Amino acid sequence: MSAKAEDRNSTSAYAALKDRFHRLSALGGAQAVLHWDRATMMPEGGASARAEQQATLSLIAHQTLTAPEVADLIASAEATATALGDWDRANLAEMRRLHAHATATPTDLVGRLSRQKSKTEMLWRSARAANDYARLAPELDRLIGLIREQAAAKADAFGLSHYDALLDGYDPNRRSADIDVLFADLESFLPDLLQRVMDRQKAGPARLPIDGPFPIATQEALGREVMAVLGFDFAHGRLDVSHHPFTGGVPDDSRITTRYDERDFTESLMAVIHETGHSLYERGLPEEWRYQPVGRSRGMTIHESQSLLFEMQAGRSGAFIAYLTPRLRAVFGGEGPAWSAENILSYYRKVGPSLIRVQADEVTYPLHVILRYRLERAMIAGDLHARDLPAAWNEGMKKSLGIVPPDDASGCMQDIHWPSGSFGYFPTYTLGALAAAQLFQAAKKARPGLEEALGQGDFSPLIQWVRENVHSRGSRQTPDEIIVAATGAPLGTAAFRRHIEARYLDA
Amino acid sequence: MSAKAEDRNSTSAYAALKDRFHRLSALGGAQAVLHWDRATMMPEGGASARAEQQATLSLIAHQTLTAPEVADLIASAEATATALGDWDRANLAEMRRLHAHATATPTDLVGRLSRQKSKTEMLWRSARAANDYARLAPELDRLIGLIREQAAAKADAFGLSHYDALLDGYDPNRRSADIDVLFADLESFLPDLLQRVMDRQKAGPARLPIDGPFPIATQEALGREVMAVLGFDFAHGRLDVSHHPFTGGVPDDSRITTRYDERDFTESLMAVIHETGHSLYERGLPEEWRYQPVGRSRGMTIHESQSLLFEMQAGRSGAFIAYLTPRLRAVFGGEGPAWSAENILSYYRKVGPSLIRVQADEVTYPLHVILRYRLERAMIAGDLHARDLPAAWNEGMKKSLGIVPPDDASGCMQDIHWPSGSFGYFPTYTLGALAAAQLFQAAKKARPGLEEALGQGDFSPLIQWVRENVHSRGSRQTPDEIIVAATGAPLGTAAFRRHIEARYLDA
Repeated sequence: MSAKAEDRNSTSAYAALKDRFHRLSALGGAQAVLHWDRATMMPEGGASARAEQQATLSLIAHQTLTAPEVADLIASAEATATALGDWDRANLAEMRRLHAHATATPTDLVGRLSRQKSKTEMLWRSARAANDYARLAPELDRLIGLIREQAAAKADAFGLSHYDALLDGYDPNRRSADIDVLFADLESFLPDLLQRVMDRQKAGPARLPIDGPFPIATQEALGREVMAVLGFDFAHGRLDVSHHPFTGGVPDDSRITTRYDERDFTESLMAVIHETGHSLYERGLPEEWRYQPVGRSRGMTIHESQSLLFEMQAGRSGAFIAYLTPRLRAVFGGEGPAWSAENILSYYRKVGPSLIRVQADEVTYPLHVILRYRLERAMIAGDLHARDLPAAWNEGMKKSLGIVPPDDASGCMQDIHWPSGSFGYFPTYTLGALAAAQLFQAAKKARPGLEEALGQGDFSPLIQWVRENVHSRGSRQTPDEIIVAATGAPLGTAAFRRHIEARYLDA
Repeated sequence: MSAKAEDRNSTSAYAALKDRFHRLSALGGAQAVLHWDRATMMPEGGASARAEQQATLSLIAHQTLTAPEVADLIASAEATATALGDWDRANLAEMRRLHAHATATPTDLVGRLSRQKSKTEMLWRSARAANDYARLAPELDRLIGLIREQAAAKADAFGLSHYDALLDGYDPNRRSADIDVLFADLESFLPDLLQRVMDRQKAGPARLPIDGPFPIATQEALGREVMAVLGFDFAHGRLDVSHHPFTGGVPDDSRITTRYDERDFTESLMAVIHETGHSLYERGLPEEWRYQPVGRSRGMTIHESQSLLFEMQAGRSGAFIAYLTPRLRAVFGGEGPAWSAENILSYYRKVGPSLIRVQADEVTYPLHVILRYRLERAMIAGDLHARDLPAAWNEGMKKSLGIVPPDDASGCMQDIHWPSGSFGYFPTYTLGALAAAQLFQAAKKARPGLEEALGQGDFSPLIQWVRENVHSRGSRQTPDEIIVAATGAPLGTAAFRRHIEARYLDA
């Protein structure tokens, strides 16, 4: 059927769009497998072939989404959208949104971006290992140049600022003006709160050392056990190893990763819990909309709220750590007071300035994010070049956390985001933390036995609540609408502040 | 640039074709990763999403290859092909060949085939494990129906028989009439030869038991060590586990698999050597033609000749086993006469009827293949239905090898080929064995020190010879032209017969 024939009525136009977006979703699934494989399995010498494969699929997806007939089909379907049900209408709106993002970027730029992202990310892996920022900088500059081209094109199309145009791709309808307010708010109370928490921890009992080594095979088996407790279904997913933990794959084949350190099991285990939160969200998305835009996850702030709900809110709760402690003692052969729930909890709640974002505690974490947010805004504005990044980074770290990294590997090269082309992503980590606190408080209110259940390793009340109030919503509402519907209030800092004060100052 | 503008001259038409086939090659690489992942990594619950992904990529590749402008571009490029160099002319001929195969299959059938292949192959995995052929049969019948549709369409287009039309997709220019002659020849001397070898082995010294268990981790480490000896580059490939050993991925990211049995290391190790032969072929293809049709491997007979050159000819040679034996003793802690090179060799040269093709010795192996060749020809002709396959299989086994499988799991369900839609593939195993014998005899003649080098774990003379005479040829010539150029004679049974007689009767 030609596009013109379909235009004759909106039902067939919408049906044609559904077919096309189904194909796009399957293509996206293939891209997810290639991405996961590159980070977990691919030998280094496969990089160039993989870059070709990924660029080709990106280009095909882009062409499929931006083909001339799609705009007409959308317009035609919209003309009589009132005849559609709620979900279909929301689906059509998402189609328009994705189409608008895609058509804003010129086709040739899509291919160049994909290749430059692959190249810069692979280079980052070796440059970080060698602590050789100078080797990365020129390629990073090239990548930033292409991202800025993309931002300018999108800004033009949407009537947004360059940075907001990128942000909207990660967190729909989010604007930096709102973030500025929330982040200013955090900065108004966090430094003082941090000081009070540190003072209190200093005055408290000393942490007893938990001695390793903790064999990697044991950590891995424990990770799988905890994933199962959290409701992860291994018939629909895997756990593997990568440089940077992430959740990849597709909802019915969810691939999470972690990394192991023989001297410390705590970090890897929490990474597993964190990624399981992401994975449960994907698995809980509305199954009847699997291959349609409205069935997708609703941006990175909501995604991060789900991982942090499991990691920070439930995973580090006194109740869950009390449940976990006997299992830790058993698998690692731990004995004595160092292996008490209180002592283990003290490791999971240790607060203080540190260099590495992914290892930061939840009190200082927002300060890491705010620094990155400011730096990436400057890079997108053209006010900060890759060569000047280390100095700006180190100055920012000194100002906000009072420490300076000894090298770039533990400084501006620590994260995969910029080398892989993700600009506008970082703020969603802290927005997600705010949302997680707000959602957890609402969940506890709605399900009074929820915390006690965690103490018995029973996540079902929490999972049922988030399935109902977040996961099953897919992309039917905006992120803020989901948060308002679930918690009765717009996204703010109050619940997060209450959470920090209760956990670190009142207990 | 529009197709019409390109048509104006053949240089730009050919350049446009090269771009298109480059994209197709990258798409094929993505498909190879999805296929490898499905067989090695994917959790069972991911099957349905993966089938969608694979069907989508198949469809896109098919559309890219069969787009209306491609035929015009090929015709236009051919009109002045004399201006092209040898390799480019061969490349253009390959483009025409691939285009002819693709356009012969209707687009909607491509999608249905891909889905049915995925479905049947996944079902086969569980049905074989449960020895439940009845569960597989209806889906296998559906698949055969679709394959027959495809065969009929291709037969029409090429003026070939249905079976030959399928065969040509695996082994270009091969015809069943030629295979019939070669296989009749094999059947004329193999049964008698088999009897003589068995009589001789019966009269010889008894095999001493080599007792395990052989830890899987040790077998895996040994496999990697042997791969390195054979010239496998781990910066460009991996070794993993699958139900059925195979070589996947792309030339610069070559993924081989094996499977392990704690009670027996010999089979897994030879599978590794076999797959390394396949992988070296891919890696040795002409690098300047990586993404073009002429740079691809030249069909499955040549491919199998390369794996069998390493497995059957070099890998089971007395010289190499003598080199390998001290390493086997060291890694498995073996001692005494059971761990002598002679005794180990006796395991690698044990001849006699057996049920499982991939475990069969090289003397009986052709009989397994000839049975499958006859059965699949009958299935394609419509003379044999899936429900009648077990009876036909068992009758054939009884007739050619004198044994009957106790169940379908070790009978007609043992191989992945039919459930994954590969009909016309099986004969290439035995054609490859004939070619391997012929190539090895030519290589030894051309490089007199070759066998002695194998005795020192030095594969470089063999590798150099096959790189020069086979790998570097890509798809510039037909399989038979490659064999004639490398060995001075067309493919026949004489070298294979000489090889069998020398190894099993003269030694």
